Amino acid sequence: MRVAGKAYRTIWPAGDGRTVRVIDQRRLPHEFRVAELATCREAAAAIREMWVRGAPLIGATAAYGVALAMAADPSDAGLDAAAAELAATRPTAVNLAWALDAMRACVAPLRPGERAAAAFARAAAICDDDVAINRAIGANGLEVLRGLSAAKRGAPLNVLTHCNAGWLATVDHGTATAPIYAAAEEGMALHVWVDETRPRNQGAMLTAWELANEAVPHTLVADNAGGHLMQRGLVDLVLVGTDRVTARGDVANKIGTYLKALAAKDNGVPFFVALPSPTIDWSVRDGLAEIPIEERDAGEVTHVWGRRGDGGVEAVRIAPEATAAANPAFDVTPARLVAGLVTERGVCAASAEGLAGLFPERRAA
Amino acid sequence: MRVAGKAYRTIWPAGDGRTVRVIDQRRLPHEFRVAELATCREAAAAIREMWVRGAPLIGATAAYGVALAMAADPSDAGLDAAAAELAATRPTAVNLAWALDAMRACVAPLRPGERAAAAFARAAAICDDDVAINRAIGANGLEVLRGLSAAKRGAPLNVLTHCNAGWLATVDHGTATAPIYAAAEEGMALHVWVDETRPRNQGAMLTAWELANEAVPHTLVADNAGGHLMQRGLVDLVLVGTDRVTARGDVANKIGTYLKALAAKDNGVPFFVALPSPTIDWSVRDGLAEIPIEERDAGEVTHVWGRRGDGGVEAVRIAPEATAAANPAFDVTPARLVAGLVTERGVCAASAEGLAGLFPERRAA
Repeated sequence: MRVAGKAYRTIWPAGDGRTVRVIDQRRLPHEFRVAELATCREAAAAIREMWVRGAPLIGATAAYGVALAMAADPSDAGLDAAAAELAATRPTAVNLAWALDAMRACVAPLRPGERAAAAFARAAAICDDDVAINRAIGANGLEVLRGLSAAKRGAPLNVLTHCNAGWLATVDHGTATAPIYAAAEEGMALHVWVDETRPRNQGAMLTAWELANEAVPHTLVADNAGGHLMQRGLVDLVLVGTDRVTARGDVANKIGTYLKALAAKDNGVPFFVALPSPTIDWSVRDGLAEIPIEERDAGEVTHVWGRRGDGGVEAVRIAPEATAAANPAFDVTPARLVAGLVTERGVCAASAEGLAGLFPERRAA
Repeated sequence: MRVAGKAYRTIWPAGDGRTVRVIDQRRLPHEFRVAELATCREAAAAIREMWVRGAPLIGATAAYGVALAMAADPSDAGLDAAAAELAATRPTAVNLAWALDAMRACVAPLRPGERAAAAFARAAAICDDDVAINRAIGANGLEVLRGLSAAKRGAPLNVLTHCNAGWLATVDHGTATAPIYAAAEEGMALHVWVDETRPRNQGAMLTAWELANEAVPHTLVADNAGGHLMQRGLVDLVLVGTDRVTARGDVANKIGTYLKALAAKDNGVPFFVALPSPTIDWSVRDGLAEIPIEERDAGEVTHVWGRRGDGGVEAVRIAPEATAAANPAFDVTPARLVAGLVTERGVCAASAEGLAGLFPERRAA
């Protein structure tokens, strides 16, 4: 997608064939910086220190990390060391483990002299696959938006989204944002309500920045506002991403998603979830009972990152020193609140039957 | 209530009989400052610039503003000018208009030489009445808490609250906090989940500070977390204040309250609202259709107040410059989601019948 009018992905090989470039997302939206990764160690640091974030982008960065390692030391020992270093960066990220397995499967059978080129090619393919999946999600979600837009008789379709399931979390297009960008590209009148998404403010800092760069009309709101907007008829569709979907359609996503799903149900607003199919965890059915919820640092709640008047960026303290905070990072939205799942294969009901219809090869599993 | 172990109200007459003191709430929780108000103009500024906030405290400050005016110029012209200056500070505050009417009714019939002393006495009575009402709310709400606490078999009762309906918004005790302070005083095991309450963070900045000073166990959470906490059985009761209750029990309160009420309903958690009876607007029935919602400055959403590492306090920007924000300040929780209303007369159902039972003199109206 575009940054100040120029097209970018979040990660790409540099022209020299030996290094990789990423958007350093740490100071967005206040500062846009492209960083060069020349070694596996730098790729690992970019993941660990969250220059890059979002499950698909973490996987892609790990893939290129292996490629950078193979360029430096294509031995079996070099491969093992690279995989170990990268795996340790964000231990809970499913895409990270998947990407490392894929890279090893590609590289291990080859002679050392062939490994670097093959690894760069495989990493590029992983990136291209992510883009293709997100494009398909965009095309499938666009059908949903078109249907709702038709009823608006030319008035803008109001979409509410939570957190950042945008192109910055993937290689390009994003998941929940892909249908929005597809709709904007075809000239649909639409407007996006962007939830701030405390405590890390990914909505205010990343989604709003993406939409501004794509010139998609949008308005930032506090996470508290969505229910009121729906009561007043100002939301036509809620569209979010997800970190994990169970085999029966329960949806784990950024904390606060469940509250928006409840408000959508109470006001007859359709609540859709966009996801690449690897996000489906076929081994789990009951999201509330079976998905562990990560508890993150309390400092994210007691402090807020922002830009000072003098231009510097820091985390200011909002709470009294004597006050402790809790910081559950995700919640689970029961399938009964979800109108549909938008995948690269199509849109289905959030149910075991709906998912089995789109993914029949999983039915026997 | 206590600040660093010493008992305070939010407003009180100084020992000299000519000035009034208030807690300057603007830099809480980072800085505690007592300010002296010596003139009506200073009282008006304290209201307008939000040294004091909360409907009951605004009314009390306006009352003392009239008293300060009468000490300087007890003429009819002086009374008119004071009332006009104070009325213009926060035009939508119902308690402000009520307090000014009460002061005029007390002072106007008197000779100028008698007015100052009478005005100070009437302002003190308004303050004492507020404290008595809140004590009664505390005693009535305590019965609700006792009932729920009994089922916990000694485990702490978990109360979730939103915004600041605390003693800082009143003269003392607060409304939603009054039952909590009463329960803590009698030694009940309890713990309070404090919603941050974006965009102005009254939960993080005021409620948490109050609870810390009273040594009530509490934990700050992002507004997004409450639904998840309820799903996990970690909330036994939601208890909030309100800005306006309709004759059938719809509740207007700080933006985001409705989302918590939905989550409470979905998880079988009782959702109670504490209020002094003047908060009931008997002229209105349908809260959604009839209560206008104030739209506040977008800068409250794009920026967050906090303390920098160097100790200074400022509002840092979290959003891109190109991003606009919307800032509805209140939402309406339909009566169907409210388990009960806690008033100074007792607890009743959130319905026309429930309210008529407690306030039979209004039935004929």
